[in-house]
Amino acid sequence: MNKSIIRYILSRVLQFEAVFLLLPVIVSLIYKEKDGLCFLIVSLCALALGTFGSKFLPKSKVFYAREGFVTVSLSWILISLVGAIPFVITGAIPSYVDAVFETVSGFTTTGASILTDVEAMSYTCMFWRCFTNWIGGMGVLVFIMAVVPLSGSHNMHLMKAESPGPDVGKLVPKVKDTAKILYGMYMGLTGVLIISLLIAKVPLFDAFVLSFSTMGTGGFGRWNASLGAYSSAVQTIVIIFMILCGVNFNAYFLIIKGKIKDFFKIEEIRTYLLILLAGALIITLLVRGNYSSYGEAFHHASFQIASIMSTTGFSTADFDLWPTLAKTILVCTMVIGGCAGATAGGIKVSRLLILFRTIGRELSHLTHPRSVRKIRMDSQPVMEETIKGVQSFFIAYAILVILSTIIVSIDNFDFQTSFTSVISMAGNIGPGLGMVGPTGNYSMFSDCSKIVLIFDMLAGRLEIFPMLVLFYAGTWRKS
Amino acid sequence: MNKSIIRYILSRVLQFEAVFLLLPVIVSLIYKEKDGLCFLIVSLCALALGTFGSKFLPKSKVFYAREGFVTVSLSWILISLVGAIPFVITGAIPSYVDAVFETVSGFTTTGASILTDVEAMSYTCMFWRCFTNWIGGMGVLVFIMAVVPLSGSHNMHLMKAESPGPDVGKLVPKVKDTAKILYGMYMGLTGVLIISLLIAKVPLFDAFVLSFSTMGTGGFGRWNASLGAYSSAVQTIVIIFMILCGVNFNAYFLIIKGKIKDFFKIEEIRTYLLILLAGALIITLLVRGNYSSYGEAFHHASFQIASIMSTTGFSTADFDLWPTLAKTILVCTMVIGGCAGATAGGIKVSRLLILFRTIGRELSHLTHPRSVRKIRMDSQPVMEETIKGVQSFFIAYAILVILSTIIVSIDNFDFQTSFTSVISMAGNIGPGLGMVGPTGNYSMFSDCSKIVLIFDMLAGRLEIFPMLVLFYAGTWRKS
Repeated sequence: MNKSIIRYILSRVLQFEAVFLLLPVIVSLIYKEKDGLCFLIVSLCALALGTFGSKFLPKSKVFYAREGFVTVSLSWILISLVGAIPFVITGAIPSYVDAVFETVSGFTTTGASILTDVEAMSYTCMFWRCFTNWIGGMGVLVFIMAVVPLSGSHNMHLMKAESPGPDVGKLVPKVKDTAKILYGMYMGLTGVLIISLLIAKVPLFDAFVLSFSTMGTGGFGRWNASLGAYSSAVQTIVIIFMILCGVNFNAYFLIIKGKIKDFFKIEEIRTYLLILLAGALIITLLVRGNYSSYGEAFHHASFQIASIMSTTGFSTADFDLWPTLAKTILVCTMVIGGCAGATAGGIKVSRLLILFRTIGRELSHLTHPRSVRKIRMDSQPVMEETIKGVQSFFIAYAILVILSTIIVSIDNFDFQTSFTSVISMAGNIGPGLGMVGPTGNYSMFSDCSKIVLIFDMLAGRLEIFPMLVLFYAGTWRKS
Repeated sequence: MNKSIIRYILSRVLQFEAVFLLLPVIVSLIYKEKDGLCFLIVSLCALALGTFGSKFLPKSKVFYAREGFVTVSLSWILISLVGAIPFVITGAIPSYVDAVFETVSGFTTTGASILTDVEAMSYTCMFWRCFTNWIGGMGVLVFIMAVVPLSGSHNMHLMKAESPGPDVGKLVPKVKDTAKILYGMYMGLTGVLIISLLIAKVPLFDAFVLSFSTMGTGGFGRWNASLGAYSSAVQTIVIIFMILCGVNFNAYFLIIKGKIKDFFKIEEIRTYLLILLAGALIITLLVRGNYSSYGEAFHHASFQIASIMSTTGFSTADFDLWPTLAKTILVCTMVIGGCAGATAGGIKVSRLLILFRTIGRELSHLTHPRSVRKIRMDSQPVMEETIKGVQSFFIAYAILVILSTIIVSIDNFDFQTSFTSVISMAGNIGPGLGMVGPTGNYSMFSDCSKIVLIFDMLAGRLEIFPMLVLFYAGTWRKS
């Protein structure tokens, strides 16, 4: 394990976070709030520490997969631990565990909150809270890669460890350029969303924070009523962008290159859109009685399924009061999540497709033992390596959910609450059912459960293995 | 697909069921009940049909894996459809869907009931109901193999399809002899249990039916209060036998051969016993407040965990009233189930061990991509084929649970009830949580849900793929 290079990259990460922390300082100047001072102090400390740590260049440039995993997971833990400090100093969230929960929930784009009254927060804190959603969505290290020159071999390992999905696609030969294009498209879409919201008469501050949470599929809201506080025009804009952000960003590159037909040929995207449409229609029929017209029912049904499947977690309605079938469909889409390479969480649609196809292959193998069948995606055979990875991921995901549910159950809340809170955290969604439903929050959990849920959010965002690698003895062994 | 041989074997299965159906007729003669006549009629019809069907020998002796799967799953469906008829004619269960549910629940050793008042049943019907638990435990086709000469190649495929676990172990070179030894040990243990119960002053009829349900890890009881109706001495005897029946029967062959040390060296058995002990101790601490002493709490805790993990489903206490952690532990052991090659259901302890080890291997592969690590069980490397099978099984299991929960949710019972009823059915346990808890039953579900649950019970008992093979187009294609 090349510890000096990990120390070096972590220090650089800290420097970047120091810069990010200056954004809320600007907000505090605009709104004349005192909270900005706390952010400034934390920023300066982070800058000093980061600059000191990156002063000594790493002794060796050796950087393999395991260094990549360890760097990414430690980076995420570090930015969360530091990013939580201003919440404590400003008094917005007095408990440090709570503040870390909120910050991890932000960076991992979960959007779950321990706040019972969101509206009590200052503009400054609110801006930081929602900004974590935005930067976490596309990834902190991807951002750094797009800006800072790191030598080639590092990049691929870092990208692999931070990007969601079974396989990392490079858009262009250089990882650094890929990162630039991804962030370019991300910023572009964010700009379009901000302008759309302004046109729909959303106040400037709201337009910014709402765009941050939507683009990162985070789901932190400014109001206690979540998206219920806005007009249905605004809600419709948000529906569209939530759906857009559940799509593989690599695919948008096809559109930029004018290959719109190829975009709709991608199996993962077609399946994703199909599940969304089918889910919205079924839920519309189920909740028709709760609303005055089919149109209204469809509006809320599609908002909710888009919010859950893109793992954003906004709500316009208390879906915990909906019929059980509607709730079960929502829980299933929680588990599935969006496309690989999107800002969404969950196990991803492409993995689901591969998993279903492994069942088909097993059936074919059992009934015709001598036949050899390849699993295909978009007419291309999927590598055995990738299939193994997908299966291991799914098994690790299931084990994570089961073990976490056991620990969270110690708090003795009902089974539905314990189970769906874990599912929601591991999928980076936000709300669950029962006490953690759209009108609830996570404040009632014990610190022990909160720490487990924090781990689940990080494991969910980084797709489990980078977090497990930290606790695997073999990682730290000399090779 | 060699349909004629499947027809032939199914006819033989029908003949055997005709013989089994004569047992309740004997019971009816002893207790002077009229219900015996109904069983006699069904038995004679089954015998006639079976004899007619097996009159024409199969044209070809070709018998591959897929014939094995199809034969086993169709056999199980057939015996359930026929075995349900007497319940309808006698009026014990007027609805045919309900009767099939109860019969499938019996043969698959689930032990879930749609009866609201079990005690209203006649001795004759009760005997048949519990006998299905016993014969289903070790397997109907295994029984036939032990008795009737079928040519060699058939046996292995049938055994593979009917026996639970990732791998079928032959005790002796011939499958037929293995089947004989297995049933010999099974009958021997049943005999010991009956005598133990008689010594504990259980009435003769109760001793028989209770032994049938316990040995098959079925869980059908004679009384509405399940095992709460018996003394704690009887409950203790049942605890011991439930635990024994969750162990791989192949392992008992080691004891017969005097290799007692080797028995306790088997990793699966050690893990199984460890989970049971740990679960019992934790639950004891959790429910201490509900009982007057640690002893009593430990008694109920160990009864419940043994009942759930061996997938029997008896109860002495309403564990739905226990703290959430205790319930979550029980749900987890529901999913795990007993050892491979036992009469218990669930995904099996050995599969769990292999799944955990695949995670370890993935971590090793991710951190040291060039290292090659073999997964081992009992110091032997596990074949890649087996690992693939285990992973596919787990994925199929998860998909089955998810899809079934969606359909069962249509009935609009709470999420906990819908989810745990499916888990319970797929694991062949019996009780779940909420409305299907130890004091509840499955009568309130719609016929649609009942049919889904029937499918889940069969899929759970036959380990999913044999049931899926029936619906797989490739099975019926000419090869």
